[in-house]
Amino acid sequence: MSLINQHGGDLDVIERRYNIPKDKLINFSGNVNPLGVPESIKNAIIENVDYICRYPDVNYLSLRKNISLYTNVNHEHIIPGNGATELISLFIKAISPKYTVIVSPSYSEYEKEIKLNNGKVKLFPLKEDNNFNLDINEFISSIPENTNMIVLCNPNNPTGTAINVFQLEILLKYCFDKNIYVMIDETYIEFTNIKKTFSAVSLISSYKNLFIIRGTSKFFAAPGLRFGYGLCSNTEILNKINSFKDPWSVNIFASIASEVMFKDTEYITKTRKLISEEREKIITELKQWKNIKTFETEANFILIKLLNKNITSDKIFKKLIGKKMVIRDASNFVFLGNSYLRFCFLLPSQNKMLLQHLKAIIEN
Amino acid sequence: MSLINQHGGDLDVIERRYNIPKDKLINFSGNVNPLGVPESIKNAIIENVDYICRYPDVNYLSLRKNISLYTNVNHEHIIPGNGATELISLFIKAISPKYTVIVSPSYSEYEKEIKLNNGKVKLFPLKEDNNFNLDINEFISSIPENTNMIVLCNPNNPTGTAINVFQLEILLKYCFDKNIYVMIDETYIEFTNIKKTFSAVSLISSYKNLFIIRGTSKFFAAPGLRFGYGLCSNTEILNKINSFKDPWSVNIFASIASEVMFKDTEYITKTRKLISEEREKIITELKQWKNIKTFETEANFILIKLLNKNITSDKIFKKLIGKKMVIRDASNFVFLGNSYLRFCFLLPSQNKMLLQHLKAIIEN
Repeated sequence: MSLINQHGGDLDVIERRYNIPKDKLINFSGNVNPLGVPESIKNAIIENVDYICRYPDVNYLSLRKNISLYTNVNHEHIIPGNGATELISLFIKAISPKYTVIVSPSYSEYEKEIKLNNGKVKLFPLKEDNNFNLDINEFISSIPENTNMIVLCNPNNPTGTAINVFQLEILLKYCFDKNIYVMIDETYIEFTNIKKTFSAVSLISSYKNLFIIRGTSKFFAAPGLRFGYGLCSNTEILNKINSFKDPWSVNIFASIASEVMFKDTEYITKTRKLISEEREKIITELKQWKNIKTFETEANFILIKLLNKNITSDKIFKKLIGKKMVIRDASNFVFLGNSYLRFCFLLPSQNKMLLQHLKAIIEN
Repeated sequence: MSLINQHGGDLDVIERRYNIPKDKLINFSGNVNPLGVPESIKNAIIENVDYICRYPDVNYLSLRKNISLYTNVNHEHIIPGNGATELISLFIKAISPKYTVIVSPSYSEYEKEIKLNNGKVKLFPLKEDNNFNLDINEFISSIPENTNMIVLCNPNNPTGTAINVFQLEILLKYCFDKNIYVMIDETYIEFTNIKKTFSAVSLISSYKNLFIIRGTSKFFAAPGLRFGYGLCSNTEILNKINSFKDPWSVNIFASIASEVMFKDTEYITKTRKLISEEREKIITELKQWKNIKTFETEANFILIKLLNKNITSDKIFKKLIGKKMVIRDASNFVFLGNSYLRFCFLLPSQNKMLLQHLKAIIEN
């Protein structure tokens, strides 16, 4: 498996392999907000750069209170982490699930982490026939008796499909009765349409079997900051995580950024508007193309399937690299194959350029 | 056990408990370089703040090459980590030692991490009679047959004692023949006298059983940056660590800082000179005091023992808090007790003030 495909953000690897300076590449593979880092974060870091000489607060109290105001979740139910990645790993270690069902295809780190903890994994396949939407009743009836944990990404990467909060509550209720933990990765939740309700945050205090993971890398365009957070109201699990967690895994700049980013309503509103408009425009356009199948997306990226067997995703990836555009060859996602591509929505002019080139390649 | 004593740096906890703003406290407990964050680091971060929108290089190639130039260790034998803490945890996980000997008293995280990995620990006591110096032959002859790992901190926290490279090589040779890994925490190594050789870096390529941990929190006054590194030439162990390590645990600011900090010879030289001078001055002064025993230190801090049984370390800690000075009550270190204090060397005027107050308390 090529290193390039493992994660969307590995521009350094592409730079080394194709000998193109990473600054020259337009990255449609990283799923990162095209508005760039909010000025509020940059200014706060510049003004408070002296704080590097301080250890972060071991209890991250202010940081957790800032997240609490943003999510409406009690700050005692919030754990900060070094990106979503550390939280995935912490929660899985705390549960040590013997048997986990992962709704798939999805982000590869869940399975990797469960196996590192000697757990077994069943991948529940989202069906292409159903446009990769999850049928919650079918899913529930498929959950084996011995299951300890369910993992789902909402909206899901790479399919872009999402489950609304009412469906999620049906699942959570069922799982609660069966002593099954549910880990929901909401990395892309803030990109969804403001008129729909996909997030499970409102259910945190009611369901002790629920653990939600949030990142700031994608929505706040801050992957270099390494800042995510977990939401969970199960005190036993939280105490367990705190007993083995690295005390200062979140750096002081994340603490500083947390003072401003979640209140930056101008940036947040502008992002949601931009992504909603681009999503609608791009879906409408793609639906008119020959030789592809488009899947409806609630996220800031879209998965498409190439219907012409002569064109494979790696060929398109390479052709676009020639144009200095990086998309995600989705062939190494489980249940997909070399006819799947994923790309995220950037600025209108960038999206227009990508679509032009992509159309020329696909329709020719 | 009081939260305050767990780590030296927890000013936030002190702020909340004693209701003193942490900015007003002079921190003699954190062992952090009093020159503050190098201007070179601050400027590099300010100039490159836009890089938050980038994922760190998964391979951290430039960062590892920067450390390589600084340490003279091949960059392939360098692992970056989220502070020394992550590296302690990674190496222990990779080895999963069933039986470990820790030279003690020392930093508490080693034992915690080994126990989290279901390992047994024997604490080898440094003897007060020997001024807490390690007798290497006595130590070697005490190592049980079934030992998988030795841990030592050099110079040692909290005693300040250090082992020179010739003694270390005797230990490494013995351990190599017995299949015992040796983890040396060199967090404080750069503070030692430039004329003596305590670091084991020159032995990295020769001893596959050696793992060295370095931080940047103390010497470069950058604990908020969360940046440490491990040195090891054992490819099998390195590959194992990379198989389970969080891919981006080191943030982009650490990568940016690594471009300038290790070349900042002005800062490095100034620090070594300041600490050497203050160390000598303070040791000379303390030796003249009544009612205490002073232990020679090679680090940027010193351990003292109160000989008047009516004064305990927590009383002195509290009295000094009243003067807005935080020292480390060393009573919760194993083998020590409530007659031990530790404090680090700050700027000459600050040290002078601490010694004045301390002398008044101790000699009265």
